[in-house]
Amino acid sequence: MIIDILFKNGSVVTDSAIFKADVAVTGEKISQIGLNIKPDPATEVVDCKGKLILPGAIDAHTHLAMPFGGTISTDDYETGTRSAAAGGTTTVFDFILQDFGETFPDAIRRRDAIAAPQAVVDYSFHIAVKDVAGGLLYTMEDAVKMGVPSFKVFMVYDFGVTDGVFYEVLDHSKSIGALIAVHAENNELVNYLSNKYASEKKTSAWYHYLSRPEFVEGEADVRAIQWAKSTGAALYIVHLANKQGVDAVTAARDEGYPIFAETCPQYLNFTSDVYKRPDGINFVCSPPIKGKASQQALWDGLTRGDIQTVATDHCPFLKSEKKWGAKDFRKIPNGCAGIENMYPYMLSEAGKGRISFSKAVGVCATNVAKIFGLAHKKGAIAAGLDADIVVYDPKAKATISNKQMHGATDHTIWEGVTVKGYPEQTWSRGRLVVKNGKFTGAKGAGKFVACKPIKLTTPDIGNL
Amino acid sequence: MIIDILFKNGSVVTDSAIFKADVAVTGEKISQIGLNIKPDPATEVVDCKGKLILPGAIDAHTHLAMPFGGTISTDDYETGTRSAAAGGTTTVFDFILQDFGETFPDAIRRRDAIAAPQAVVDYSFHIAVKDVAGGLLYTMEDAVKMGVPSFKVFMVYDFGVTDGVFYEVLDHSKSIGALIAVHAENNELVNYLSNKYASEKKTSAWYHYLSRPEFVEGEADVRAIQWAKSTGAALYIVHLANKQGVDAVTAARDEGYPIFAETCPQYLNFTSDVYKRPDGINFVCSPPIKGKASQQALWDGLTRGDIQTVATDHCPFLKSEKKWGAKDFRKIPNGCAGIENMYPYMLSEAGKGRISFSKAVGVCATNVAKIFGLAHKKGAIAAGLDADIVVYDPKAKATISNKQMHGATDHTIWEGVTVKGYPEQTWSRGRLVVKNGKFTGAKGAGKFVACKPIKLTTPDIGNL
Amino acid sequence: MIIDILFKNGSVVTDSAIFKADVAVTGEKISQIGLNIKPDPATEVVDCKGKLILPGAIDAHTHLAMPFGGTISTDDYETGTRSAAAGGTTTVFDFILQDFGETFPDAIRRRDAIAAPQAVVDYSFHIAVKDVAGGLLYTMEDAVKMGVPSFKVFMVYDFGVTDGVFYEVLDHSKSIGALIAVHAENNELVNYLSNKYASEKKTSAWYHYLSRPEFVEGEADVRAIQWAKSTGAALYIVHLANKQGVDAVTAARDEGYPIFAETCPQYLNFTSDVYKRPDGINFVCSPPIKGKASQQALWDGLTRGDIQTVATDHCPFLKSEKKWGAKDFRKIPNGCAGIENMYPYMLSEAGKGRISFSKAVGVCATNVAKIFGLAHKKGAIAAGLDADIVVYDPKAKATISNKQMHGATDHTIWEGVTVKGYPEQTWSRGRLVVKNGKFTGAKGAGKFVACKPIKLTTPDIGNL
Amino acid sequence: MIIDILFKNGSVVTDSAIFKADVAVTGEKISQIGLNIKPDPATEVVDCKGKLILPGAIDAHTHLAMPFGGTISTDDYETGTRSAAAGGTTTVFDFILQDFGETFPDAIRRRDAIAAPQAVVDYSFHIAVKDVAGGLLYTMEDAVKMGVPSFKVFMVYDFGVTDGVFYEVLDHSKSIGALIAVHAENNELVNYLSNKYASEKKTSAWYHYLSRPEFVEGEADVRAIQWAKSTGAALYIVHLANKQGVDAVTAARDEGYPIFAETCPQYLNFTSDVYKRPDGINFVCSPPIKGKASQQALWDGLTRGDIQTVATDHCPFLKSEKKWGAKDFRKIPNGCAGIENMYPYMLSEAGKGRISFSKAVGVCATNVAKIFGLAHKKGAIAAGLDADIVVYDPKAKATISNKQMHGATDHTIWEGVTVKGYPEQTWSRGRLVVKNGKFTGAKGAGKFVACKPIKLTTPDIGNL
Repeated sequence: MIIDILFKNGSVVTDSAIFKADVAVTGEKISQIGLNIKPDPATEVVDCKGKLILPGAIDAHTHLAMPFGGTISTDDYETGTRSAAAGGTTTVFDFILQDFGETFPDAIRRRDAIAAPQAVVDYSFHIAVKDVAGGLLYTMEDAVKMGVPSFKVFMVYDFGVTDGVFYEVLDHSKSIGALIAVHAENNELVNYLSNKYASEKKTSAWYHYLSRPEFVEGEADVRAIQWAKSTGAALYIVHLANKQGVDAVTAARDEGYPIFAETCPQYLNFTSDVYKRPDGINFVCSPPIKGKASQQALWDGLTRGDIQTVATDHCPFLKSEKKWGAKDFRKIPNGCAGIENMYPYMLSEAGKGRISFSKAVGVCATNVAKIFGLAHKKGAIAAGLDADIVVYDPKAKATISNKQMHGATDHTIWEGVTVKGYPEQTWSRGRLVVKNGKFTGAKGAGKFVACKPIKLTTPDIGNL
Repeated sequence: MIIDILFKNGSVVTDSAIFKADVAVTGEKISQIGLNIKPDPATEVVDCKGKLILPGAIDAHTHLAMPFGGTISTDDYETGTRSAAAGGTTTVFDFILQDFGETFPDAIRRRDAIAAPQAVVDYSFHIAVKDVAGGLLYTMEDAVKMGVPSFKVFMVYDFGVTDGVFYEVLDHSKSIGALIAVHAENNELVNYLSNKYASEKKTSAWYHYLSRPEFVEGEADVRAIQWAKSTGAALYIVHLANKQGVDAVTAARDEGYPIFAETCPQYLNFTSDVYKRPDGINFVCSPPIKGKASQQALWDGLTRGDIQTVATDHCPFLKSEKKWGAKDFRKIPNGCAGIENMYPYMLSEAGKGRISFSKAVGVCATNVAKIFGLAHKKGAIAAGLDADIVVYDPKAKATISNKQMHGATDHTIWEGVTVKGYPEQTWSRGRLVVKNGKFTGAKGAGKFVACKPIKLTTPDIGNL
Repeated sequence: MIIDILFKNGSVVTDSAIFKADVAVTGEKISQIGLNIKPDPATEVVDCKGKLILPGAIDAHTHLAMPFGGTISTDDYETGTRSAAAGGTTTVFDFILQDFGETFPDAIRRRDAIAAPQAVVDYSFHIAVKDVAGGLLYTMEDAVKMGVPSFKVFMVYDFGVTDGVFYEVLDHSKSIGALIAVHAENNELVNYLSNKYASEKKTSAWYHYLSRPEFVEGEADVRAIQWAKSTGAALYIVHLANKQGVDAVTAARDEGYPIFAETCPQYLNFTSDVYKRPDGINFVCSPPIKGKASQQALWDGLTRGDIQTVATDHCPFLKSEKKWGAKDFRKIPNGCAGIENMYPYMLSEAGKGRISFSKAVGVCATNVAKIFGLAHKKGAIAAGLDADIVVYDPKAKATISNKQMHGATDHTIWEGVTVKGYPEQTWSRGRLVVKNGKFTGAKGAGKFVACKPIKLTTPDIGNL
Repeated sequence: MIIDILFKNGSVVTDSAIFKADVAVTGEKISQIGLNIKPDPATEVVDCKGKLILPGAIDAHTHLAMPFGGTISTDDYETGTRSAAAGGTTTVFDFILQDFGETFPDAIRRRDAIAAPQAVVDYSFHIAVKDVAGGLLYTMEDAVKMGVPSFKVFMVYDFGVTDGVFYEVLDHSKSIGALIAVHAENNELVNYLSNKYASEKKTSAWYHYLSRPEFVEGEADVRAIQWAKSTGAALYIVHLANKQGVDAVTAARDEGYPIFAETCPQYLNFTSDVYKRPDGINFVCSPPIKGKASQQALWDGLTRGDIQTVATDHCPFLKSEKKWGAKDFRKIPNGCAGIENMYPYMLSEAGKGRISFSKAVGVCATNVAKIFGLAHKKGAIAAGLDADIVVYDPKAKATISNKQMHGATDHTIWEGVTVKGYPEQTWSRGRLVVKNGKFTGAKGAGKFVACKPIKLTTPDIGNL
């Protein structure tokens, strides 16, 4: 088999181990992993001495070009995926918001038409469920067949679903190879507390946090897990940010329930103190960043495996848009940029010894692929998989600045954060797309990746 | 790099995934894993179509040629390792029992002199600690330097240690790269209950179980974990057999303590009902096989990852020796054969869907290597590791019978148990040692493998 | 002090002890408890040899003359309190349903006008909160001042409150001496499941149970406790019927939260199997009677003190009304008669040894008085309290039959249940109101009893 | 019935309530409790206006004239019971240490011969079990018949019992009406840590605490509860001092196991910081006083009812004896004075609002009587019980000083502690024994009180 590209002299990182080996790519796929592999005459040899060879990250949670909060999130599929690539992310799961009355296949077609011409790395979708009435429920299965087997329900926002619909969707998911994800916060409490603080003229960003305090998310996590347990369905909790939720996920998994959870770098790196900063409004996202005990619990849960994935919830807005809520936190568009920072941050924490590099690769890539039905194509350095490869320099140092980011946003909550190590090259299906911070890819080169139907059961707790 | 052996067309199983790939061996090492690898002219090609390519298992718990119960366990290092190889196990950890007054290095030398000329596959050691007085404690470090960093304390038997010594050894282990393992049962209760039943003329094998009931092991597990938590040391519980212990391990891990546990196939496949069988004495081992709830808890713990390894506790005695206790369970030599049955049984359960093949490989090989400091050499199919390879036929069917076993024992508790799938070939460092049940290896070809110092901490909970 | 009535030779039962003593009554009050008290010449002596002298029970939960389910509950204040008295209950807490827009004082006045001319024993009120908008919230305090400091919110039914209002009411209760009670079931799930079964033509009484299964109540208990914990308010869960709820209450109390719970005799004596009986519709109440594990958990919680009170949730409907739902469980008026059966049943269980007589007195009388601010007047045999006294014959035997009941209903779910022991005489403030099953009281003799403001905090957990 | 003494105008405190009432005494017994009781001409009237009328306390745990630590505890039965009386304690449970080879009845007779002529208030015994071999086990039943149904095992000290004997004694207790108490600390760990610190020349009182740290007691509590659960016997843990133990007791009670626990005022009022004081050696007792978290847990457990009793573990030594260990904590006689301080301290905490007066009475008197088979005679203000009465002035203020104590010791750890409220009069069976700090009783007037056989089962959890 002809070798097109050969990554030599590096250390391969899998979710289980690190070992010295060369990695050969043929066409779009990884073809060999071995000791002292010899290049063919035409082989492009990439010297990886002192470098780590990682699978490209898979961002399980992004909102590109999404209408929300009275505007549209700043990054479209081009700038968003370009930014992702620059951070070592080679696959992006974006959320489609179903319209009321719209079938799930129609929703996919509607958004793929926008994404396909723009994406610079591969992408797939989850669908946010708004409406299952009038038989729409049964179009979920059609979406599964189209390669989109993951659905999300919101317990908050005016388009959130009732407990009855949530239960119904979970129950239905079991027989059709679908996985239900959930944004868990208690809508009634958020409304009550928001209005209470507003009526008391307490309107700074700090009250965004106080109106969605720890227990408002924790209660919803507990309730969501209850419905999963009662239906027997698997559940994936997105952007878990609070200690009570971590404890509830852990307890349910100990009992053998297939409950999975994702957290985000912003919850791992910051605490709710950011809402007291002068630029606190820029950190406004939902669920809000929590206190120190929750931050520690998230790290603990991630470290021991009760949280399986890290994703960004990338949903950027311009500074000027954020300022709409300078005097009323309720008017701040919820969301932050982060698509370019996930892998660098998590790998930096690995480099500092908080977790292992294998754990970082697991939560940012391998586990995401396994959970969402992509492990046959993505998420690991293994023969036969897509050549989505990151060459990572563990000795680099970087201070994050929006100037160097590759997206369309005009600020970042990560401004000034220093990381140890940085992705040097990002390869997407055998094509170099970023090198030393310079984008070398092409608009539209990214392809939709169809996921397989998902069936997560008790034994998967121990495999994820 | 020249390819000596090429395993073609099979599916490689790692502890994280299964994928189609060829595996090349050069000398004693795995040199490449890839798609369509081309053999050299001299390459021996092993066609693995329809087969799984697995790392050889590592049996973390054996007692070969061990003086115990008034006799010596039936298998020596030759017959024991031969039997292991026939079951797909390519590395064996044997227990050295320190003599009173003996330094740990002397103990290693004493036993290695016996093992080295006999072993047919590689081996390493744990040391069972009897005596740390008079400065012997400080010779642990010398053993670590010799490649034996794992020690076991017994909470039972007349050579067991007191809680004070257990605590001292745990405390000392932290600074010297050692890991402490424990046989956990409450000695006083065993003595009290054994003598009570004996005095009541209740002497059948069933009373072996009743004199070491669930809580006698459970209490000791809880206590052992307490000492580990108090010292901050890691702990490895051998042959965990009861539900309370599983719960205690799970709770401690949830709290972030580096507690690890091993169970055995006999606890997974049988229940205490065997002690009511006519041949019940043959099943007598300690801790005894427990009831149904414990059996289920062990499977649950294994499945979700709170039990990390499976080992055999192989310690066979002849039928005639077992009969010494036909009229008094206290006189039965404790122990059963099993060294040849671990991998076939666990893989069979994987084939039946109870766990994944990756999980079977993880608990029988990869995790054992990671825990005991052998992952740089053993435990996985990865470039650079020893070519300890099992070609496994998932479609084979076998009924276990002592006649076909390769050890020296005259019976097996596994007699008549049917398994789905079976190891077809076992390779040890690139040498074929068993093929279709026929031993092709050589006495003395197995080598002592030095383990690296062990430092298991909180993050390892999520990596194991 | 002149003795009007002297109960001689009996055994007094308090919530802490049983001891032989005479009990003297002067006017409407208990004046002395002592050994060999001498009657005055005019004293009426009641010989209690072989009898227990108990405080009259206090039924914390009744619905008299309540519009519900398209009709009005069968018993009015006369027949209801008469039936209560015949069962040894001398004080009744009835639920006032606030009208939308109505202040709480107006609600009290509206219902007291109905109750006052009818009641034959003393009564008090709780108010069921429907509407706190437009300043109505602040009229709670006025109700407290009128002697009605206990409020209930419903999490179900179309007049139930949102989580936001529930939280607000709890938060407000802390500063005004009010206690919030809750009917905990998940409304959305009840609706979803009811409609699902109806759409599948599953409409028998059994589907009443299936549409409100264990977890539908359990989830709501957990959520209600969450709000109590978050606000720091005390909480009283009415008619707790499921195991998950018992566990949640127990856990919260162990953490020091002032959470209190009531269960009902129907949940202690029956299981959900009753819904399979031909007369299953007669047992339809909400929450429905649960399965065996829940029944056991309720007894366990009651026995160890994590459930503090037993009340009836008396809400009877005629057989003909129950039949409205013979072909559609959703149309059955929810509720059962029981006001006359509580004390006989609980004391019978004490007589059989399941609990102590002191426990029966505690949960049916003393604790109710303590929780709801009535301990200065009611709930115990102690000098200075109202002479609400039951002379109880522990050797009597009775088989419950609706024919012998004293209310207005035409059937009872307790038909045919046999009890050991029975109240022989009931005295209300020194007046004999029932003797040997014959009513001797008078319509309108019962008075409204004002409760004191309620402040339950952590230390009360150990006092209740 | 003639009234000899009449306590007028006070408030009676029971473990359930406080109410204004007069209390009449006839002979040695309480004869009436009532409103405005009229004295007979010869009645001695005690005006209790503004005072509380309490049952005398029962100290469940004292060591009078006990040989220990190379000497004998300072107080004998005269000075000890006199001191008790001055603190409002009217019954004392003293520990008999069985001699090796001695039957339990002989042990009782041996000690009662010493106590009977000396005691100034009533007393009873527990027996500390050292030896059950050779049929001595079966003499437990004889002790039960003699009115001593409570036995204690030590898990520490050289006369402590093995787990096997502990289990045997527990198992045997069930059928003979006996209750087993336990001093729970891990003997091996205490020895190991003591010797370790001594070998490191760490010998101050602080190392007494460090050699018996929190987990050394916690582990033993967990183990003791395990044996109780396994045998199905009730268990009473004496002087519980650590958080882990409180948690274990709570969990076991939640599961329905009849586990009971006692703590001591010194654990409630002090923390381990006292061992850093210049007079730290005077605080040396076993188990040692623990850290702040344990102190809080003890209060929490007491408040919510998971700890049922408070006792003193009174075991005083002279300052000169304490000084034997000034340079080696292992030589300090273990124990402190406290017999006079329990009721004043607990009632003071009630007066300050930490617990209710009913709770103080419950844990210091009523519950002790109920647990140990004395409720038919002692522990409450109720008609028919012994007139052991304390007139308590809730407005008094006192600063504890050894000068004012009534025992034989020359110092007190309570020196300088101020309390709110103080016992003004102590009456023992109708005789005034202390008034305003002046002893008015008589040596030998106290009598042995026979306890009834003890059978504590699950329902008792909720009654205690």
